[in-house]
Amino acid sequence: MLQESSVDSSGSRFAPLVVLELASDTKEEAIAWLLNRLRPSNHLPLFDQLGPGIGVEEKENPNMFLVGASMQRLLCGAEDLGLFKECTDGSMRAFTFASKHNFKDFKGDGDGFLSMAECQYVIKHELDTLRAKEETNVPGYSHAKLYPGKSIIRRLLSKGILIQMFPLHENEELKRLSFSWYKKVKVSLQPLDDIRHYYGEGQALYFGFLEYFTFALVPMALIGVPYYLFDWEDYDKYVVFAVFNLIWCTVILELWKRRSASLAYYWGTLCRKKAFEEPRPGFHGVLGHNPVTGRAEPIYPTSKRHLRVYLVSLPFVLLCLYLSLYIMMIYFQMEGWALSIYDENPTFWTHILLFIPSIIYAVVIEAMNLIYRYAAEFLTEWENHRLESSYQNHLVLKVLVFNFFNCFASLFYIAFVMQDMELLRQSLATLLITSQILNQFMEAFLPYWLQRRRNKKMIRKIQKRRLYEEKELPLVEQVRLEADMSTYLGTFDDYLELFLLFGYVSLFSCVFPLAAVLVVLNNITEVYSDAFKMCRVFKRPFADPAANIGVWQLAFEAMSVIAVVTNCALIGMSPQVRSYFPESETQLILCTVAAEHVLLGFKFILTFLIQDVPKHIQDKLARLEFESLEALKKKVKSDSALTFFTLLPLSKLLPVL
Amino acid sequence: MLQESSVDSSGSRFAPLVVLELASDTKEEAIAWLLNRLRPSNHLPLFDQLGPGIGVEEKENPNMFLVGASMQRLLCGAEDLGLFKECTDGSMRAFTFASKHNFKDFKGDGDGFLSMAECQYVIKHELDTLRAKEETNVPGYSHAKLYPGKSIIRRLLSKGILIQMFPLHENEELKRLSFSWYKKVKVSLQPLDDIRHYYGEGQALYFGFLEYFTFALVPMALIGVPYYLFDWEDYDKYVVFAVFNLIWCTVILELWKRRSASLAYYWGTLCRKKAFEEPRPGFHGVLGHNPVTGRAEPIYPTSKRHLRVYLVSLPFVLLCLYLSLYIMMIYFQMEGWALSIYDENPTFWTHILLFIPSIIYAVVIEAMNLIYRYAAEFLTEWENHRLESSYQNHLVLKVLVFNFFNCFASLFYIAFVMQDMELLRQSLATLLITSQILNQFMEAFLPYWLQRRRNKKMIRKIQKRRLYEEKELPLVEQVRLEADMSTYLGTFDDYLELFLLFGYVSLFSCVFPLAAVLVVLNNITEVYSDAFKMCRVFKRPFADPAANIGVWQLAFEAMSVIAVVTNCALIGMSPQVRSYFPESETQLILCTVAAEHVLLGFKFILTFLIQDVPKHIQDKLARLEFESLEALKKKVKSDSALTFFTLLPLSKLLPVL
Repeated sequence: MLQESSVDSSGSRFAPLVVLELASDTKEEAIAWLLNRLRPSNHLPLFDQLGPGIGVEEKENPNMFLVGASMQRLLCGAEDLGLFKECTDGSMRAFTFASKHNFKDFKGDGDGFLSMAECQYVIKHELDTLRAKEETNVPGYSHAKLYPGKSIIRRLLSKGILIQMFPLHENEELKRLSFSWYKKVKVSLQPLDDIRHYYGEGQALYFGFLEYFTFALVPMALIGVPYYLFDWEDYDKYVVFAVFNLIWCTVILELWKRRSASLAYYWGTLCRKKAFEEPRPGFHGVLGHNPVTGRAEPIYPTSKRHLRVYLVSLPFVLLCLYLSLYIMMIYFQMEGWALSIYDENPTFWTHILLFIPSIIYAVVIEAMNLIYRYAAEFLTEWENHRLESSYQNHLVLKVLVFNFFNCFASLFYIAFVMQDMELLRQSLATLLITSQILNQFMEAFLPYWLQRRRNKKMIRKIQKRRLYEEKELPLVEQVRLEADMSTYLGTFDDYLELFLLFGYVSLFSCVFPLAAVLVVLNNITEVYSDAFKMCRVFKRPFADPAANIGVWQLAFEAMSVIAVVTNCALIGMSPQVRSYFPESETQLILCTVAAEHVLLGFKFILTFLIQDVPKHIQDKLARLEFESLEALKKKVKSDSALTFFTLLPLSKLLPVL
Repeated sequence: MLQESSVDSSGSRFAPLVVLELASDTKEEAIAWLLNRLRPSNHLPLFDQLGPGIGVEEKENPNMFLVGASMQRLLCGAEDLGLFKECTDGSMRAFTFASKHNFKDFKGDGDGFLSMAECQYVIKHELDTLRAKEETNVPGYSHAKLYPGKSIIRRLLSKGILIQMFPLHENEELKRLSFSWYKKVKVSLQPLDDIRHYYGEGQALYFGFLEYFTFALVPMALIGVPYYLFDWEDYDKYVVFAVFNLIWCTVILELWKRRSASLAYYWGTLCRKKAFEEPRPGFHGVLGHNPVTGRAEPIYPTSKRHLRVYLVSLPFVLLCLYLSLYIMMIYFQMEGWALSIYDENPTFWTHILLFIPSIIYAVVIEAMNLIYRYAAEFLTEWENHRLESSYQNHLVLKVLVFNFFNCFASLFYIAFVMQDMELLRQSLATLLITSQILNQFMEAFLPYWLQRRRNKKMIRKIQKRRLYEEKELPLVEQVRLEADMSTYLGTFDDYLELFLLFGYVSLFSCVFPLAAVLVVLNNITEVYSDAFKMCRVFKRPFADPAANIGVWQLAFEAMSVIAVVTNCALIGMSPQVRSYFPESETQLILCTVAAEHVLLGFKFILTFLIQDVPKHIQDKLARLEFESLEALKKKVKSDSALTFFTLLPLSKLLPVL
């Protein structure tokens, strides 16, 4: 029971926040050493070893520790992190312990001022910045070297001594959240503030983006439905749709930036200064001194990394793209053969043969995506990036380019080389519907089912020993259950899916107007399945104080540029436009190209004109900046108040001629 | 004699830095009131009234005041401004009076630590931020209203009571600078650090850019010369040149960003925090409260300004562009008529008639540029921008678009509609050579000649009264001479000229390979004429602590995008490329367009890949950031050092099942 908490000697309650799981065969001296470093005299959180659970005889890991901290310690940690909170005057300011009573929700000792996600993030930060003081090694592990300034937790993780570190769920909160999020049937917005409160800003921004994207698609879906109902075969009238598409994809991305800035401002992440990033756990190199912090850390020359990126990774990615293109060409050839065989001899078996190439191609594409994903992860790891963010950017870029190619190359081929709009529409519909069903099954229901089986086993085990009066599990069992849950790997795959859907809609929805409708439907179910997955399937992730959707904004913008070009080309190819240039194809192409350039130029001007941050937030940010400058000036003035000047009648001294 | 200085009661020397010129008919009470506000007890600079000069009987203005300040006051002002200076360890840090001995060039009382330009900037800032304390008006001027927080100097300027405020030249320094800058004949780099020292960062960056641009053109000029000498008529081989152009214009702009960041870092402007910008003098509106500073100031709704920009200025600019296009078409028609008349009846008079359209067109273009410039200034003033920077941006944009159109429309027409490469080459050569000669005459020699005549009159006047032993003028005459010099209006026109030259080279140098050579020659003379103009023709301008070339970087980048498109089109039109597609024009165009898109994409990727700030500067900036964060943390830690935790054997308290 998470509600159950203990009282320490100074009278504050112990609320368990984070779990540390060490390997079950960790040597005693290492545990003692680590616990010693976590001891409160170092101003570090309280901790507690998890009592043996039910299944000690079944070789359950005895080395699980609960970490908590007093409210005062957490508040100091929040100040240390520079968390922004709302003040009584409605503005957002960096929290400081000294000025705590200026903050809106601060009452009494500050209980409830920080959300549990924030408390857990504070503890994670404190654990991450627990540093070795001298050159030594983890006691009992001579290969786990430590040097001054090295994060102990990261070394323990990289050597496999620390298996995992995860924050605990709050059952009451979780119930409330899941009820307002996905359990009620009535149509309403997602509880973004609650999601942020429970899972942190990174998650909340993902769900905010998903919701925003869905709403942005509604007008397009509304145009698409009558189009589909009344004009199904009259697809040469898609010029209107394509023009709408053009403007739509630019405008919604710009408006999202504004919305994201608003959200991030009120969540306090927009102006929070980020701490200097630590090297990621897998980073290796010769021990040297970081030029920025002066701390000892591994140094790896940037030039070597560039060599690896440009001479190995880049050619590899290009090779994979070529391969993917090659396989696509084989698919179209097979398709042609199958068709010719069917035309020669139209029987039942040859009719089935028609589907064989598509099926083979779909399977091969999925396999290639999977293999490529592993290869990309391996390569990016091998590139040895110093920062997690740079690792993520390189991985996202690699996976994105390949996925884009794999998903869209065949569609582009059909549209621009074969110029078969009917086939394009069919392919799009098939792709959208199958990917929707497959994704939601693979993403949420399969893991949930596996999870459920594991849980049931565990609960049966417990019930064997004793009968429950209460429905809730005791804390010890709760922790063990959560430790067994799968780890949530971040929003990467969710964003990738949205990216591909955005691509289908913005590139080709003029050919298949129902695409927007399908994507809206998909997004609605996606909200539920993602929410369900977050609440029930995965371990709670640590909060990620993100201020925007990061590299994905760039990816979506790149897609919208490609959409402009594609839509222009589709307009140029439409019979409606062609009929205006009956004799001269050259003129048609020149006009299309000119229109495309004007539109691209217009798009960039629009990007400049629509400000990324709404005016009232800009004012608030400027006010914060202004106040800090004024504070600095006051300091200067009071320092220099000693200086004193006298007025001098200099005209007498000047040589008047 | 500027070297002559007086000693005040506390023993520090009075060095005059800035001159305030009030209208000669300013009322006595207003002068007394202003001087009272400038009195030292307010921590403001020393001042002195300029003694009557030679020509009192000739109605010389008696209301000229010299402003100076003690070194300590200036140093405090520098801290107030957040000036960055080099430390003993080679890094750049914000100067603080308390840590003054950590700075590299700080010796004794700090004499010579700040350059004279910096001292003058400090005094300008102090004068600008001299604010009214209550709601009143300037004594004797009931229409010159003041409200709490209003800058007094700006009100005096806007009401015409203060005529001008300008910094004084230092004759010794100026001699040294002009010798090393433009008086010696040997080829060498410009003394950028000295220019920055004397004129501030904005000027130094302009000359840095001019120098950089000239060097960047050298490879192109070197390719151009043999091209011109050996292949004059063989202009279908310009594909190589166009491809070189494409890459060149992207790369040099990216590299300039890096160089500019380096320069700005070592000049201390890259990381200086800018103070909150005051409303510009001409800004008007209903008195309200600024949402950022909370100060009373005029408020003008953004929506109204947007209406003016989009409903009046934008249509006006479009109309002007249309007019310019229309006049261009008339020019080409006249050209046609003249040619047909000459063809019919080739006499001497009809031959002269051939030149008439060009001459008329050139005159009309110049007149249009001039009228448009006034109209643009009027409109931008009328748009009522709150900030000087926003006013400048809108003005630059308006003038830029029109000038671009006026200068390049006819060239584009010749290149792409008439497709007459021979005529294009002739037009380019004429434009480049005449604009070069005209510009340098109008910019430097004409103002210098006018200035010289005025000076001579003044010197004769002085000599009438007495004979000089020394060659130097006394301070009083020096100040009066400088007050009469023309005011330097900023780098706008200089950058505009470079922008147009950059356009000629990047757009069309493949057609006329000698363009780069001409521009290099122009730039070399431009350096000398600009340097001469700065040193001898104009009043010394106040330093402008710029960190980059601002909106011009954007303008040059926009031009480089246009250059990619233009060069691709020129390549596509070249007979060499056309011969590859003998039968299908459609295919030629499609290939050209595809190549263009790939190149544009490549250009944007290149822009991402080349980092804007060199790695070692990035490290230094990160180090500064890191140190300020660490300092904050230490403060937090020492504040929270009271918090104390005890370790609790919680396992005993937990309900072990």
